[in-house]
Amino acid sequence: MCGIVGYLGNRDVVEVLISGLSRLEYRGYDSAGISVMENGTVSIVKAQGRLRNLEEKLSSGSLKGQMGIGHTRWATHGAPSDENSHPHNSNNNRISVVHNGIIENYMELKDKLVKLGYEFLSDTDTEVIPNLIDFHYNGDLLEAVRETTKELKGSYALGVLSIDEPDRIVATRKDSPLVVGLGEGEYFIASDVPAVLNYTKEFVYLNDGEFAVLTKDDLSFYTNEGEKVERESTEITWSAESAEKGGYAHFTIKEIYEQPKALKDTMTSRIIPGEKIRLDDIHISKDMLTNYSRIYIVACGTAYHAGLIGKVAIENLARIPVEVDVASEFRYRNPIIDHKTLLITISQSGETADTLAVLRESQTKGARVIAITNVVGSSIAREADDVFYTWAGPEIGVASTKAYLTMLVAVYSIALHFAELLGTEETSYLEEIKKEMLTLPEKVAKILKDTTKIEHFADKIHGEKDVFYLGRGLDYQIAVEASLKLKELSYIHSEAYPGGELKHGSIALIEEGISVITSLTQRELFEKMQSNIKEVVSRGAKVMAITYEDNKDVEKYSDEVIYIPNTMDIIAPILAVVPTQLLAYYVSLYKGLDVDKPRNLAKSVTVE
Amino acid sequence: MCGIVGYLGNRDVVEVLISGLSRLEYRGYDSAGISVMENGTVSIVKAQGRLRNLEEKLSSGSLKGQMGIGHTRWATHGAPSDENSHPHNSNNNRISVVHNGIIENYMELKDKLVKLGYEFLSDTDTEVIPNLIDFHYNGDLLEAVRETTKELKGSYALGVLSIDEPDRIVATRKDSPLVVGLGEGEYFIASDVPAVLNYTKEFVYLNDGEFAVLTKDDLSFYTNEGEKVERESTEITWSAESAEKGGYAHFTIKEIYEQPKALKDTMTSRIIPGEKIRLDDIHISKDMLTNYSRIYIVACGTAYHAGLIGKVAIENLARIPVEVDVASEFRYRNPIIDHKTLLITISQSGETADTLAVLRESQTKGARVIAITNVVGSSIAREADDVFYTWAGPEIGVASTKAYLTMLVAVYSIALHFAELLGTEETSYLEEIKKEMLTLPEKVAKILKDTTKIEHFADKIHGEKDVFYLGRGLDYQIAVEASLKLKELSYIHSEAYPGGELKHGSIALIEEGISVITSLTQRELFEKMQSNIKEVVSRGAKVMAITYEDNKDVEKYSDEVIYIPNTMDIIAPILAVVPTQLLAYYVSLYKGLDVDKPRNLAKSVTVE
Repeated sequence: MCGIVGYLGNRDVVEVLISGLSRLEYRGYDSAGISVMENGTVSIVKAQGRLRNLEEKLSSGSLKGQMGIGHTRWATHGAPSDENSHPHNSNNNRISVVHNGIIENYMELKDKLVKLGYEFLSDTDTEVIPNLIDFHYNGDLLEAVRETTKELKGSYALGVLSIDEPDRIVATRKDSPLVVGLGEGEYFIASDVPAVLNYTKEFVYLNDGEFAVLTKDDLSFYTNEGEKVERESTEITWSAESAEKGGYAHFTIKEIYEQPKALKDTMTSRIIPGEKIRLDDIHISKDMLTNYSRIYIVACGTAYHAGLIGKVAIENLARIPVEVDVASEFRYRNPIIDHKTLLITISQSGETADTLAVLRESQTKGARVIAITNVVGSSIAREADDVFYTWAGPEIGVASTKAYLTMLVAVYSIALHFAELLGTEETSYLEEIKKEMLTLPEKVAKILKDTTKIEHFADKIHGEKDVFYLGRGLDYQIAVEASLKLKELSYIHSEAYPGGELKHGSIALIEEGISVITSLTQRELFEKMQSNIKEVVSRGAKVMAITYEDNKDVEKYSDEVIYIPNTMDIIAPILAVVPTQLLAYYVSLYKGLDVDKPRNLAKSVTVE
Repeated sequence: MCGIVGYLGNRDVVEVLISGLSRLEYRGYDSAGISVMENGTVSIVKAQGRLRNLEEKLSSGSLKGQMGIGHTRWATHGAPSDENSHPHNSNNNRISVVHNGIIENYMELKDKLVKLGYEFLSDTDTEVIPNLIDFHYNGDLLEAVRETTKELKGSYALGVLSIDEPDRIVATRKDSPLVVGLGEGEYFIASDVPAVLNYTKEFVYLNDGEFAVLTKDDLSFYTNEGEKVERESTEITWSAESAEKGGYAHFTIKEIYEQPKALKDTMTSRIIPGEKIRLDDIHISKDMLTNYSRIYIVACGTAYHAGLIGKVAIENLARIPVEVDVASEFRYRNPIIDHKTLLITISQSGETADTLAVLRESQTKGARVIAITNVVGSSIAREADDVFYTWAGPEIGVASTKAYLTMLVAVYSIALHFAELLGTEETSYLEEIKKEMLTLPEKVAKILKDTTKIEHFADKIHGEKDVFYLGRGLDYQIAVEASLKLKELSYIHSEAYPGGELKHGSIALIEEGISVITSLTQRELFEKMQSNIKEVVSRGAKVMAITYEDNKDVEKYSDEVIYIPNTMDIIAPILAVVPTQLLAYYVSLYKGLDVDKPRNLAKSVTVE
């Protein structure tokens, strides 16, 4: 997830681009860069890190021009560095491109271009695009871009300049957002409306596969087949600030709604039915894997909860013993670590201090380390032996939602990969899981479509002091994360228990009117869980249950039931946790709290 | 812990003995039995199980006599059975004995007696006593008992009859309680006052090593050296009911105060400085142990919390990987179990349904099972391959206290045993731990001596809704148990967190005035923990800290400090948990709750 912006008109181009990028920084801030066209030459300025670094480089004010494109990067392929920063040029510097998205077949395209004599200066997937455009260029930039996109697999929003056509910007998109802004004698492109809302209120939302060609006097749209189409523009009435959140009241709810895309991006190019799981940055052979006597998954907070599910997935599919621990405890308990240990660390930011310390100490003792992280080039990503990047895009809300869901994709993918390496499960079963995983983005979208019942329940409980979450098997690991989310967002004291453990003490807290939230997604445990629900109901609890849409029985012993689409039990957490995120969000909202920045918390915990 | 009673006088002997035993049943109910002397012959009637079984056997009313002794048993050596029931006779049936306590050197004494031609009919330690008395008998029962006790190591309260002296009962005690009751022309002996408080209010508390000789017309006391001494009797003003709890308001607090004895009993004959740990019912050789690639500790509730400490102890001392899980979750998660798996189950009652199911399923898959339990002959004890009995005595209060402390002794003993087998630690270090463990009963007694500060803190917080427990390393496992105890007894929603994990979400719940309870017993983590305490203090929390008496620094950043005697960090939980038990008790008391029987709970959970 990156931000792109483009401008063509009479204003100070650099100023417009920087202003746009500053409003897109929430989409990533690993590096920023701009290409500006002046009298037939293109100048590129890039800087690693926050936008202010780029601004410093530009502070002399000498860069001028009539048009330009800009980019703020959220690293996916290739670490944050000057070379990997956008814009990227073709080898001959005639084509300049900014790109948001992931090109899945870039390795293939790179091979082809290398054979044709092209050289590559970065580790990015993007760099294939300007060279491919250059290869296809025959005097018409639109045609060259159109030919190029025919070869691309994956997602992209593109802004393209060519010194051969110094008055045009060509833009297109597929599965990544792009809008075109219309001013008086000026045009804009941007990843979203708020980037340029201070300049114009009139926008065209580019359709998937559509092309826009911007010149000073004209704006034209073309279909995938190259046919010209008319597009009506829309007048935007949002304030610039609310629009930054894409119309959502908070980043947290925006990020909850971005989950279908985050899931899809994270599975893209990794999970392909009929093919083995492809984890390009994990280099563990069958022999190596056989040698590991144990796997530790170490993390903090929500990432630790993803680890709990990872344990179940890896033990069930690959039959390797896994132990999960919180980093701050693991470090100091003198754990048994040697060259037969495989460590998996999970950290959204890749900078979590305790997790990083565990990684370093474990490597010193001979362990190999896989990092699951959302931030390319983060300390944990750099120092790990193997990496799985969750392509969730930047997460701004302090309480993790979409990053958590993509961490689950990560642990399931690793479990499937290990099972394929070791042959511990039937191929047909693993294939079934993979196919089912690919349906999850759509199923999550379905859950997000109608939140009426969840909002209603949130309204009912938002004044309460205590809430309990119950679950058995994977439903317990869901309960643990669901409970933390409610705590973080609503400050309600919630706690999660394994259904069968409640009676060994904690049931003393259950009294008339207490709310108990539970999920039932593990079919072989339905009956046992039903007994546990009845235990709390008979003591006066009100129960909200989350279960499959074909499990209508639950209505008989619960006060409210939230249905989720049917899926395979082993991957059900990816669906079942979503209603609990929404619940936590709405409870926070109804309590009038600062949803995006809960008290006492910080997004990335870089202290111990 | 058993109950004994004796009577000599004109009342119906059987009625007095049964009445006494019924009031002693809280001390054990595995079996009961009486010996009655009538015209120079002794009749014994015994029955396994509850006292009513014995009563049924006696219902014909035909058994009569002038004096007798009775016993209700809490099995320690030998399963609950008719043969193992008391009273025990000498081979020639001339001597009959009831015994409460544990004879540590009974194996040695048995060998000696077997060589002399004595036969043994039971598995008990007790049976050596009547035979040894018989061996020493030269026409004076007092002398024979005195000679016998010179040979006994361990603890005992004894009531002895001989058909050669049909008008006398000889009684004595060492480290087990015994009182003598005085009526008009009648005398009683009993484990405690309430057993016969319906017959008399006048008592003599027998001193350690003292002997009482009861005849119809006379009651005499003798020292260990056989010198006659005068003893004043005391008038008891208690009600019979309050006295059953030994003067305590509740069984829970009584059991908390019984902990020094429970610890001592559980270590007795197992932990001896300079000798290897002796676990008679565990038959695991070094070779077998080396073969186990992993140990699971599986339990429920408080026993699970003992398991958490067991993991730390075993991993640190014996360097075998240990995983701990709650039984109701472990069963259904398809864990990796085979003949290379050693399972340790922990259950006070030995009947916990989920734990028993795990034991059976694991054995089917080839695992070997060690049971830690408080109940000899329980299902879990019978079905396990190896057993460690915690000799805590019967626990009546539903919230476990003394049983938990003895479970800790069990897991430490097993860890030390494994370390000795594998040679994973220096002998000197293991010796140091053993010696230090033997000081703990006295140190617990010291904590129990002055509870003023704890009562004060309990008073302060008893109206609160939420309390948090924090700890790092072993202090976290203490926090988990401490939190459960407060929940169970006071219904306050308390929760435990690892100190370093709080900031990953749950710190959102910390607000002005919230109470946070923490222990600091892990010296290398003091500094880290201090930071975590400051994090909550800076957000308005009131902090009660439990720490070593030499760690006065804690006063600088805590509102209240409870000091415990210094000890080795690795075994500190045995001390540090005691103030938290007291706190939970007093909070419950101040809230006016039913301390011994918290709502919704049962003592032994025999359903899933």
